[in-house]
Amino acid sequence: MKAAIIFGSTSDKAIMEKAAGVLRDFGIEYSSHVLSAHRAPELLSETVDRLEAEGVEVIIAGAGLAAHLPGVIASRTVIPVIGVPVASGALRGADALLSMAQMPRPVPVAAVGIDNAANAAYLAAEMLGIKYPDIKKKLETFRNKLKDDSAKNSDGGL
Amino acid sequence: MKAAIIFGSTSDKAIMEKAAGVLRDFGIEYSSHVLSAHRAPELLSETVDRLEAEGVEVIIAGAGLAAHLPGVIASRTVIPVIGVPVASGALRGADALLSMAQMPRPVPVAAVGIDNAANAAYLAAEMLGIKYPDIKKKLETFRNKLKDDSAKNSDGGL
Amino acid sequence: MKAAIIFGSTSDKAIMEKAAGVLRDFGIEYSSHVLSAHRAPELLSETVDRLEAEGVEVIIAGAGLAAHLPGVIASRTVIPVIGVPVASGALRGADALLSMAQMPRPVPVAAVGIDNAANAAYLAAEMLGIKYPDIKKKLETFRNKLKDDSAKNSDGGL
Amino acid sequence: MKAAIIFGSTSDKAIMEKAAGVLRDFGIEYSSHVLSAHRAPELLSETVDRLEAEGVEVIIAGAGLAAHLPGVIASRTVIPVIGVPVASGALRGADALLSMAQMPRPVPVAAVGIDNAANAAYLAAEMLGIKYPDIKKKLETFRNKLKDDSAKNSDGGL
Amino acid sequence: MKAAIIFGSTSDKAIMEKAAGVLRDFGIEYSSHVLSAHRAPELLSETVDRLEAEGVEVIIAGAGLAAHLPGVIASRTVIPVIGVPVASGALRGADALLSMAQMPRPVPVAAVGIDNAANAAYLAAEMLGIKYPDIKKKLETFRNKLKDDSAKNSDGGL
Amino acid sequence: MKAAIIFGSTSDKAIMEKAAGVLRDFGIEYSSHVLSAHRAPELLSETVDRLEAEGVEVIIAGAGLAAHLPGVIASRTVIPVIGVPVASGALRGADALLSMAQMPRPVPVAAVGIDNAANAAYLAAEMLGIKYPDIKKKLETFRNKLKDDSAKNSDGGL
Amino acid sequence: MKAAIIFGSTSDKAIMEKAAGVLRDFGIEYSSHVLSAHRAPELLSETVDRLEAEGVEVIIAGAGLAAHLPGVIASRTVIPVIGVPVASGALRGADALLSMAQMPRPVPVAAVGIDNAANAAYLAAEMLGIKYPDIKKKLETFRNKLKDDSAKNSDGGL
Amino acid sequence: MKAAIIFGSTSDKAIMEKAAGVLRDFGIEYSSHVLSAHRAPELLSETVDRLEAEGVEVIIAGAGLAAHLPGVIASRTVIPVIGVPVASGALRGADALLSMAQMPRPVPVAAVGIDNAANAAYLAAEMLGIKYPDIKKKLETFRNKLKDDSAKNSDGGL
Repeated sequence: MKAAIIFGSTSDKAIMEKAAGVLRDFGIEYSSHVLSAHRAPELLSETVDRLEAEGVEVIIAGAGLAAHLPGVIASRTVIPVIGVPVASGALRGADALLSMAQMPRPVPVAAVGIDNAANAAYLAAEMLGIKYPDIKKKLETFRNKLKDDSAKNSDGGL
Repeated sequence: MKAAIIFGSTSDKAIMEKAAGVLRDFGIEYSSHVLSAHRAPELLSETVDRLEAEGVEVIIAGAGLAAHLPGVIASRTVIPVIGVPVASGALRGADALLSMAQMPRPVPVAAVGIDNAANAAYLAAEMLGIKYPDIKKKLETFRNKLKDDSAKNSDGGL
Repeated sequence: MKAAIIFGSTSDKAIMEKAAGVLRDFGIEYSSHVLSAHRAPELLSETVDRLEAEGVEVIIAGAGLAAHLPGVIASRTVIPVIGVPVASGALRGADALLSMAQMPRPVPVAAVGIDNAANAAYLAAEMLGIKYPDIKKKLETFRNKLKDDSAKNSDGGL
Repeated sequence: MKAAIIFGSTSDKAIMEKAAGVLRDFGIEYSSHVLSAHRAPELLSETVDRLEAEGVEVIIAGAGLAAHLPGVIASRTVIPVIGVPVASGALRGADALLSMAQMPRPVPVAAVGIDNAANAAYLAAEMLGIKYPDIKKKLETFRNKLKDDSAKNSDGGL
Repeated sequence: MKAAIIFGSTSDKAIMEKAAGVLRDFGIEYSSHVLSAHRAPELLSETVDRLEAEGVEVIIAGAGLAAHLPGVIASRTVIPVIGVPVASGALRGADALLSMAQMPRPVPVAAVGIDNAANAAYLAAEMLGIKYPDIKKKLETFRNKLKDDSAKNSDGGL
Repeated sequence: MKAAIIFGSTSDKAIMEKAAGVLRDFGIEYSSHVLSAHRAPELLSETVDRLEAEGVEVIIAGAGLAAHLPGVIASRTVIPVIGVPVASGALRGADALLSMAQMPRPVPVAAVGIDNAANAAYLAAEMLGIKYPDIKKKLETFRNKLKDDSAKNSDGGL
Repeated sequence: MKAAIIFGSTSDKAIMEKAAGVLRDFGIEYSSHVLSAHRAPELLSETVDRLEAEGVEVIIAGAGLAAHLPGVIASRTVIPVIGVPVASGALRGADALLSMAQMPRPVPVAAVGIDNAANAAYLAAEMLGIKYPDIKKKLETFRNKLKDDSAKNSDGGL
Repeated sequence: MKAAIIFGSTSDKAIMEKAAGVLRDFGIEYSSHVLSAHRAPELLSETVDRLEAEGVEVIIAGAGLAAHLPGVIASRTVIPVIGVPVASGALRGADALLSMAQMPRPVPVAAVGIDNAANAAYLAAEMLGIKYPDIKKKLETFRNKLKDDSAKNSDGGL
């Protein structure tokens, strides 16, 4: 099982690292790529084709502003694409969220919250959990641990 | 392979029918449910548990306004949940989009466009395509047909 | 007479402390809890049930992003729930405000201003004042003192 | 037990009728008033004083545009005030919602959703339920009936 | 000729000082007042009445959040009221701008830009210029000086 | 005493008629002009100069979209300019409101509500009332009549 | 001299026809194409390459929702690309405007107003006017005629 | 070949410098000017006329708030005008973007992203590339270098 993380600019790296961290926590193999939909469209297309040939099963794509990256990837493959709107620029990611969520039919992008690359990775794990029972099991264990931790730390302290 | 479509109000039915139509086109078995996160929270929880026990592998959830439905479902299961923001009310779905996309970590919802239930179903098919090669093949065939149709109908006529 | 303050994340604590301070000023007993609607839904339900059994008469709930917490609490009880949208994240609480105010009928949340936990506590006191004349009296005294202070300090100094 | 419904313009009447209907369903006595914060400020003040003297325990106030009505009422009394933003005008109630929810401390308005006068009345009933056990009981019965109805009508039909 | 500057909170003072500075530049006498529409409504009414009796001819009112102050003043007098939306709070004055500009007929507020108290004072001077030729003359001289300065400093230097 | 109404397009005429009606009610003489800041900038400048020479004391300017009209007029004169944002186009006047209210210093526009040309005329009357006691008196009579009418019609009828 | 009009869906045709009409008025040869950035990305790339080879000098591209079309074209060529945000969907083109204007450096799109395809064509003519003096002359003649017409029809009629 | 950069205030200089830098990189001669549409309208008109007489072929105009500058320039000439919305003020350039993009027909402004003066210069180069083959060639070389650099630096490093 294999995932890919693609982001449009090195300035998105700190945000996207959170996705990588979650994938590592779940033992999901991944590769990461800096690729712009606008500066290097052919390289992006070739990379998506190669990733698909290598067996990548889910792609996480992060970008800011008019964030076309996940949509352009999604136009190239039927592997599910998860979009992370990055809060760069004056509009703080509201532009990027709309550029991802409002994709026209029949080419969806699965949008998560602004700057929430961790959630993109949890969603990727859930998608892989459809096929891989051990990933689903790890997610359930993780969620149960969250519940136990919540129970231990529920005192508001105010 | 099995999907579920859940929506918060009968007034969402016309929109969500588009998701059902796409699932049928791809031969994906599904059940459909009208269940409110707020009016019947226990019934929603029980239904999600039952759907999971029955082998449902992806859930599409549509709601308007402060659209908590997909997030509440996602809090109950690690099956991937796709949210369809419905444009009911004065803010035309902007509220519902934010109530879905901005889910906190580590409980993601995969948000698609406002009223775009068809895209939710295409995304569900892509997720199932990770596990089921025939669904992935159908998606590729469908996409290729789109390309052929585009080539035949690209005259703008202006 | 008893209130409860619930918030979704320890990062909301500094904001919610302002609610606690106001409740203390009015001599309203309260308990406080960190409980996520998404990370620990069953624990939240159980806690709401327990708080109701213990005689809690009003609940203040604060959360950021897709802030489902007060709505999920409100789905579980007919005790009035006051929502405090917290300005975490790139959209600075606009998302949280909509996720609270736009609750569908018949499960309301009483939304106050973004980060305005103090106002949530004043509103809680007003609700308790319906039943407890001494709380209403304290509110009137407090308001009258405000007016006196305003009269003493109305020189703009420009 | 007694409530009051105040709205700023006869054009808000159709929306506010939904609040009146819910109050009647719960057997809550109420009076209704068309009173503008801007066209008749003294009359509004006098009416609020009179309503308070008559024993009104909660006020529902609906208005559109720069909807100051509930805030102006709240500045005059410590009775809890529930604001209904009405979607009149080009901005469809987004202006009214902000004019209510964003009230400065220590004078809160309990904002419900745009045009959602029914929810204002349910919230009023919840507030009165703090003092009147029979109102709380009616709310619980109503909610339980909703749950039973939901269970009977949960087939999505898609 | 006389103006008044009213603001809702001492936290607005730094912004409103810019209005005072402009009034002084034009030799317009003014008084300044910290008065909240919500914390001290009667004092505000009395003050507006007194200012009118004293011959005040234009009022500049600044406030943030659900900024009712200029509208409440305008409901009390037919002296023109200029509103300065102050960018306090998470929404950075967008809420205050709507709470001023969207006043219902027939009680207008003249809204200027967010935090732009200087423009409020220039507008006040323009209004007074209708009656007082020397103020109009000063404004014309000021504008002509601006034009001369612009001509001298129009080199972009890039 | 004399006012002028200028609007950018014949499609704004129905909205701006409301301003004309109010001016007539108050016996304020006015002229009206269709003049675009972009299609006929020199004609606009000449007209503003001519209106000023003719003794016009206040200008009401209505426009939609990127509504530069009142700002461009204001750059040409120190007569106060009132802007009416017209709700043409997809953004329903939110664009026009910002294009008017957010004028940079020291060239203000007095913005009123979207499509609220009546309020522009009431504001114009208030400005003229600074100089003309009979206009101020008419405004006070009008406001008092409103209060009397409010008192007679304050029954909500719900 | 030659232009191309590309739009993403046949539902955009009525809007884009306005661009074609203006190009015809100015005697600018054009071809028109229905091509989706997402449904047929390779066909779009090939078409852009072919249009460039055929000597097309400016491209007008219209799309709604997450309107990637002009940006994807711009990533493929250094011919200037003008984007027309189309007001399809619940957000009425606000999403499309941001998806075009907020393009990252160094791949610009020249965004015009929502649904304003006519302005896209006027802008295309201005760009071509840099090279072709007769186009520039026609634009000047057109603008002068506008001014003459404005002068003849400047009576507001109110 | 010659461009001009005009900006409304010295506070915009740091942003607009990025446009100048790109023009220099492409060997495009330019002049730069600080000129306000509101403080010095006649000087602006005269300057635009003079620039046109001097052979300027494209104008880049940057401004914040109610950013009328590019629209006012465009009303004066048929040279293409590119608008750079500057993120000054509380609304961070959303106001300026709308004040530029939403220009009414037939006077377009080519809007680029908020604070994205670099993209304005790239767009200016593309427009000049219609006429000057060496500019088009330089743009192609620049884009190809970008692609080569992207290929060398596509490792995401996560």
